[in-house]
Amino acid sequence: MDPVKHFSGVNRRVLLSTLATLPVLSSALQSSFVLAQTPGGMLPSWNDGPAKQAIVDFVRATTDRSSPSYVAPEERIAVFDQDGTLWVEHPMYTQVVYCLERARAVVEKKPELKDIAPFKTVLSGNHEEIARLSLRDLEEILFATLTGMSVDDFNAEARKWLETAKHPRWNRPYTELVYQPMLEVLGHLRDKGFRTYIVTGGGQDFVRVYSEKVYGIPPEQVVGTAAGTKYGYEDGKPFLTKEPKLLLNDNNAGKPEGIHLMIGRRPHAAFGNSTGDREMLEWTGAGAGARLKMLLLHDDATREYAYGPAQGLPDSKVGTFTQALYDEAKQRGWTVISMKNDWNEVFPPTTVGRSTR
Amino acid sequence: MDPVKHFSGVNRRVLLSTLATLPVLSSALQSSFVLAQTPGGMLPSWNDGPAKQAIVDFVRATTDRSSPSYVAPEERIAVFDQDGTLWVEHPMYTQVVYCLERARAVVEKKPELKDIAPFKTVLSGNHEEIARLSLRDLEEILFATLTGMSVDDFNAEARKWLETAKHPRWNRPYTELVYQPMLEVLGHLRDKGFRTYIVTGGGQDFVRVYSEKVYGIPPEQVVGTAAGTKYGYEDGKPFLTKEPKLLLNDNNAGKPEGIHLMIGRRPHAAFGNSTGDREMLEWTGAGAGARLKMLLLHDDATREYAYGPAQGLPDSKVGTFTQALYDEAKQRGWTVISMKNDWNEVFPPTTVGRSTR
Repeated sequence: MDPVKHFSGVNRRVLLSTLATLPVLSSALQSSFVLAQTPGGMLPSWNDGPAKQAIVDFVRATTDRSSPSYVAPEERIAVFDQDGTLWVEHPMYTQVVYCLERARAVVEKKPELKDIAPFKTVLSGNHEEIARLSLRDLEEILFATLTGMSVDDFNAEARKWLETAKHPRWNRPYTELVYQPMLEVLGHLRDKGFRTYIVTGGGQDFVRVYSEKVYGIPPEQVVGTAAGTKYGYEDGKPFLTKEPKLLLNDNNAGKPEGIHLMIGRRPHAAFGNSTGDREMLEWTGAGAGARLKMLLLHDDATREYAYGPAQGLPDSKVGTFTQALYDEAKQRGWTVISMKNDWNEVFPPTTVGRSTR
Repeated sequence: MDPVKHFSGVNRRVLLSTLATLPVLSSALQSSFVLAQTPGGMLPSWNDGPAKQAIVDFVRATTDRSSPSYVAPEERIAVFDQDGTLWVEHPMYTQVVYCLERARAVVEKKPELKDIAPFKTVLSGNHEEIARLSLRDLEEILFATLTGMSVDDFNAEARKWLETAKHPRWNRPYTELVYQPMLEVLGHLRDKGFRTYIVTGGGQDFVRVYSEKVYGIPPEQVVGTAAGTKYGYEDGKPFLTKEPKLLLNDNNAGKPEGIHLMIGRRPHAAFGNSTGDREMLEWTGAGAGARLKMLLLHDDATREYAYGPAQGLPDSKVGTFTQALYDEAKQRGWTVISMKNDWNEVFPPTTVGRSTR
């Protein structure tokens, strides 16, 4: 039923079964999948400063039993946007790159699309024209490449693509371009009894393909933009088809709506990086007690990218961080993380603990 | 933000915080919330026989590291229908009773509905006429009583109702009419590393109100029929309104679709009791390795109810178990639990461990 090979070429089920035979080592080893060794104490990739301090203070306030802001373990929920918060989103969201590249395969199966916009434009490979596609055109590409196939087939295709696709700037797999400081936050929160969720505008099924391996976040803790599925049969065997029917647009107000649908509790911590995360932080902050609200500002063109337009950074259609959002954050006590100043590392080391790819 | 009092009159947050200060006792005490003491070993309310044996064999096969059917901990998912599987559903689904009683409050706020069917019928209190309401009429009542208010207001109303409403036959709160043998299965599976989910045709928000206290199943592990919500503001403070827009009809094929949406993994065990659970069991059984598929047959009019129409039991519109489903179960190796023969207790003891109400 699961025709899926794994990123690393190692069969994960076998690997985990083997690890599980080592009871004491098991959980330690499994965490090292996600977190590269982090010598030098807690959050080592974070420079001392208000951002790191906000995280440390929040965790202490909510998990120290003598604290007035103590939070019962079952209520410890932390939510993370993905694109631009946990991994690189420039020059284009990874899933959109996937869809544009998959459009070719769709046209091979349906040659009648070859000469029709927007498929014609995508096949042309003309980056300028592709960048000018309307939102409606883009949606047509997304539906054509993300729906109409079985869930298993989609998972297999997405996994296969992620194995080989590389980011044009670093020539590394997209799944390696995750932010080491955020992996450390995920690990620290989990160590303290928080359940970590992804709440992404990206496709829920797409992110679930790699979230467990890359972030240690299991599929049931991924909330994303979701389309319906339809139950059917092939040779008497049931399967689910991905339907072009949007159930949840997990952006902006859709984020608190998605959190209610999928989690049913208000988070105590929320991390984002763009206007699409505004309502999620607002919803988190509207709860009583200690609540952590953080926004990552991409102000580091040298090590990653610089875009806003907040604080005079270059404007961007991808992961827009407006000056209005920046001002609101300051006014409401949300913490803005400066990639340039708050992080001493951006990406995980390539050779230690992540060397299978 | 959480204006909710608790069933027992004890503030649960305070109680849990207090328990949490006793680190060793904490988890033991918290389980005793859900499971009354179960002396006499595993699954004491189950008589020896094929049903109990199927559970014991499945758990051993999937959790013994030397077993060829061993299942990695993160894949250990067990799903349970609720109405008629975990608690009493006759003579009418509890949530429908709630909606019919809430209809009166809706009419008080909107008096123009008083003389209009189906509200007029419901207000008449005429049980025969109410029983003859069409599905469309019933849906109108459900939408009027389950949507149009904030999530917080709905939760408060439902909690308040559950505190006082009693089942007409036993004169006990509905939340006490849960099946002791199934509580034992939930506890046994969790002891063995399974995550237990409710997958119900009932309303997701309704069941979440009590699932943690009654079954030890947290809100994020309740999948149910779900309507959309809408994010808005009152006095600058955000809140979610329950909208009359169906996102997921979690019955029949909707159950595997809901499992994909909310969990994203195929369960290894599935428990149900009616035709609405057929596809969930089929989907579970279509996975590789050991999979447990069980259906509860209500064949015990003395201690609970007897209905089918399978096996010549009286027919019923509520929780229908057809002969076709029975035959399919036998043919496919799904286990049918006979309430009469397989259970030596039906309900939890009233005085021990559940005495707060």
